[in-house]
Amino acid sequence: MAGYDYDLFVIGGGSGGVRAARVAAALGKRVGIAEEYRFGGTCVIRGCVPKKLYVYASQFPEHFADAAGYGWTVPEASFDWQTLVANKDREISRLEAIYKKNVEGSGGETFHTRAMIVDPHVIHLLSEDRTVTADQILIATGGRPAAHPALPGHEHCIFSNEAFDLKELPKAIMIEGGGYIAVEFANIFHGLGVDTTLVYRGKEILGRFDMDLRRTLHETMEKKGIKILCHSVSESVSKRPDGRLDAQLIGGQVLTVDQVMLAIGRIPNTENMGLEGIGLDMTAATGAIKVDPYSCTSIDNIWAIGDVTNRVQLTPVAIHEAMCFVETAFKDNPTAPDHDTIATAVFSQPEIGTVGLSEDEAVKRFADVEIYRASFRPMRHTLSGRDEKMLIKLVVDGASRRVLGAHILGPDAGEMAQLLGIPLKAGLTKDDFDRTMAVHPTASEELVTMYKPTYRVKDGERV
Amino acid sequence: MAGYDYDLFVIGGGSGGVRAARVAAALGKRVGIAEEYRFGGTCVIRGCVPKKLYVYASQFPEHFADAAGYGWTVPEASFDWQTLVANKDREISRLEAIYKKNVEGSGGETFHTRAMIVDPHVIHLLSEDRTVTADQILIATGGRPAAHPALPGHEHCIFSNEAFDLKELPKAIMIEGGGYIAVEFANIFHGLGVDTTLVYRGKEILGRFDMDLRRTLHETMEKKGIKILCHSVSESVSKRPDGRLDAQLIGGQVLTVDQVMLAIGRIPNTENMGLEGIGLDMTAATGAIKVDPYSCTSIDNIWAIGDVTNRVQLTPVAIHEAMCFVETAFKDNPTAPDHDTIATAVFSQPEIGTVGLSEDEAVKRFADVEIYRASFRPMRHTLSGRDEKMLIKLVVDGASRRVLGAHILGPDAGEMAQLLGIPLKAGLTKDDFDRTMAVHPTASEELVTMYKPTYRVKDGERV
Repeated sequence: MAGYDYDLFVIGGGSGGVRAARVAAALGKRVGIAEEYRFGGTCVIRGCVPKKLYVYASQFPEHFADAAGYGWTVPEASFDWQTLVANKDREISRLEAIYKKNVEGSGGETFHTRAMIVDPHVIHLLSEDRTVTADQILIATGGRPAAHPALPGHEHCIFSNEAFDLKELPKAIMIEGGGYIAVEFANIFHGLGVDTTLVYRGKEILGRFDMDLRRTLHETMEKKGIKILCHSVSESVSKRPDGRLDAQLIGGQVLTVDQVMLAIGRIPNTENMGLEGIGLDMTAATGAIKVDPYSCTSIDNIWAIGDVTNRVQLTPVAIHEAMCFVETAFKDNPTAPDHDTIATAVFSQPEIGTVGLSEDEAVKRFADVEIYRASFRPMRHTLSGRDEKMLIKLVVDGASRRVLGAHILGPDAGEMAQLLGIPLKAGLTKDDFDRTMAVHPTASEELVTMYKPTYRVKDGERV
Repeated sequence: MAGYDYDLFVIGGGSGGVRAARVAAALGKRVGIAEEYRFGGTCVIRGCVPKKLYVYASQFPEHFADAAGYGWTVPEASFDWQTLVANKDREISRLEAIYKKNVEGSGGETFHTRAMIVDPHVIHLLSEDRTVTADQILIATGGRPAAHPALPGHEHCIFSNEAFDLKELPKAIMIEGGGYIAVEFANIFHGLGVDTTLVYRGKEILGRFDMDLRRTLHETMEKKGIKILCHSVSESVSKRPDGRLDAQLIGGQVLTVDQVMLAIGRIPNTENMGLEGIGLDMTAATGAIKVDPYSCTSIDNIWAIGDVTNRVQLTPVAIHEAMCFVETAFKDNPTAPDHDTIATAVFSQPEIGTVGLSEDEAVKRFADVEIYRASFRPMRHTLSGRDEKMLIKLVVDGASRRVLGAHILGPDAGEMAQLLGIPLKAGLTKDDFDRTMAVHPTASEELVTMYKPTYRVKDGERV
C-alpha cells in the first residue's frame, strides 16, 4: 500500500463520497477526494436540501390562508423569488463548506477537479494536470437529470438543476414527468403562485407508490389548482416571438408557458472519466456501474456507491453504502448494504411518507392481506376549512400479522414514515401496533387505533 | 339482568364513558348514559381539542415571521379573539353531536342530567326527577381543575375551563403552575400576543419529564419572551380600582395583569353523586375512586374509568380502560388496562413528545445507561433564522441494548412520540433503530443515525 500516494481515492464529493472519505480518513487511511463542481453533491447543492427549503417557501401562502379560520386577518403578502434563491445559496454554501471541512478535519485531502481513471491505480486530476496513485478507488459521481435530445426544442427546456436558480419566477410552467421530482416541483411552483401543468405519459403519477396515495395526491393537487395531464407527452417545444414557449402535446393541445422543465428520469454520471478505457463493467441501458453486493466493481480495487450504481437513488442509501464500503475495504469486515424496507418521503403537498409494500405488491406476494385504511380531515383543517384529507393505510399479512407496508399522505408524512421504518424493519406485527397507546390529539394515533381491517384481499380478490 | 332497566348505566359522557356505552350497546346490551354538561367531556369540550386548536391559532405569528427568510413580505396581521372562540365553539359542538350520535347510533340511550347513585343498582336522574335501575354501573365523571380556596383573592382567578371562553383576550396574564396545562396555555397566550408570566413553585417546569427537555423548553420559552418564575408562588390576588389584578408573589414581587389563571392540578369529580351514601371506597387525599386492576370499585357491580380514578389522566388511557371494562364486564374476558410505556405529548411551542423512561429514572433502575443526544436547528429554521433548537434523546440499557426512553423537543414531537411508542412498547433495541434507513431530509432521521452514545451513566456516574 505504501507504494501508492493514497490508500483511497474517492471520485465525487456528494453524500456517499464524502462519508467514505471522512470515515476512511478517520481510520488513519491516506485519503484523497476529487469533486469537479461543489462538495455536497446532488443532495446539498441541487437536490434534497434546496428542494425542501423551496417546499417550505411554497407552503406559506397556505399558512396565510389557513390563519383566517383561527381569527387572523392577514393582508396580502408578496413574494420575491430572488430573495429565496439568494438565501438558499447562502445555506447550501454553508453546508458545502461543512462537507469539505469534515473531510479535511478527518485528515483527508480535497481536490477541486474532474478526475479520470487512467489505470486501475492511477487517477488523472484534470485541473491540476497531474496524476496520483491509489490502492483503492471509490467512484461516487452520482447522477444527473436525463436529457431528452429526441424532443424537438429540447434546448429551450430546463431540468431540476436549473429550476433552483431561474433568474425570475415564471408565470406559467409545464413540468414533464410523473416521478417524485416532477411532483415536488409542481407543488413548489404552484405554491409560489406559478400557473403549473404536470404532463405525464403514464396512467398515474408516482409509479411504484401505493395506488391509494397516488390517486389521492393527484386529486388533492388538482383541487389546489395544479393541472395534471396523464397519458400525455410533449411532441415539441418552440420559442414564440414574445419569448414564451409553446409546448405541443400529443393530441394537439398546446401549452403556452414561460418554462418547460423536464423531469423524466436521472442517469448515472459515468462519461468522460476513463471507465471504458480501463474496461469497467457498466449496464448498457443506463451507463450505471455494475457492482457486486459489496459495492465492488468488475475491477477488484475499484468500488462504486450511490446514484452512479443506480441501485436505490437516495442520500441515506449512498451514505449507508459508504459505511458498508469502509467496513468491507478497510476494516476487514465485509458488509453488504441492506436495501430492504427503506422508508421514503415525497415532499409533495400534502406529503407522502411510505415504507414497505404497497397494497398491490403485497397482494402479489401474500395470499391473505388485510388493509387498514383511514381517511380524515387533519385537525388543523377543521378551523382552516381547507378541504384536504389525510390518508393513512397499513398493509398487513393476515397469516403472520406482520405489518408489510405503511402509507401516509398528509402533513408530516415524511417524519412518520421515518419512525414507522423502525417497527417495519424489525418485522413487528399489527398486534404490536394495537398494543401501543394513542397520543391524542395527533394524526398518527390513527395508525395505532385501526382495530378492524377496512377490507381483506384473499388470493387477489377483495373480500 | 332482565329485572333492571339497563344492563349498563354510565355516568359521565366524556371519552371513556361514551366509548364504554357505545361498545356495550353495540354488543346488544341495554345501555343508558347520563351527562350533566356536554357530551365529549374534558377532551372535546375544554381540553385536548380546543387546546390544540388554540395552539394552532397561536403559531401563526411565527409562520408570518418565518416567511421573511423565504422571500415573503407579510404586512402586519391582526387577530380577533372572538372569531377564534366562535369557530372553536362551532367545532366542539360538531364533535359533541358526533359523540352523542355515536352512542345513540349503537342503541344506547342518552340523558342530559346529573346522576346520583342511591343504591348499587339504582340511579337517580336529577333533571328528570326519576330513578332507573341498572345491573352494572360505570362511573366516568372525569376531573376538573383544582381550586385554591386558601389563596386570598382566589375568586378573581380563572382556570383552564374559563380560559377558552374569555370575553376578551387579556393584555397580560399570569399563569400559576408548572404542569403541561400551565405550560401549554403560557405558549398559547404568548403566541396570541399576551404578555405572559408563568409562576411555578417547583425548581423546573414539567416535573417527571426528562430534565433535558424541561430545561431546554424553559430556555426556549424565555427566548420567545415568556417570563418564567420558578421557586415562586402567589400569596394573594387583589382587584385594582382599574379592574386589573395585582398578584402578590412570595418575596414581594407584584405582577399587574388582566387575568390570573390557576393550573395547579386536577381533581376527580366524585362529589354530590351519592358515592359516600353507598360506601364506595375513595382515596382520602384526592377523592379519586379506588379501583382494582380491572377498574372495578369496592362495590362489585360498580366500575370506574378515566380521570375519576386518577390513574393516568389521558384521553386514550380512558378509552383503553373503557375497552378493557367492556371485555371484562360483558365479554367474559377479564382484561386489565395496560398502563406501561405510554407515549405522551405536551403541545408547548416547541412541542414535547416522549415515551418511556427519562434519563434520571433509567439511571435509578439500570446499572449501565447509554444516552444518545442530538441538538440541532431544524431545517425550516435555517432560512427563517429562528434561533430555536430541536433536541432528540434516546435512553438505552447498555446491557440489553433495549431503548428505554425517547424524548423529543421540537416541531411534530407529538407525532414522533406516537410512532416511537410502537418500537418502545415492543421492546426493540438500539440495533433495531440503527438498522433502519434514514429518510432525508427529516428531523426524525436523527433518531436512527446516532451511532455512538453521547455519554454513558454507569452505576449512577456519568462517564
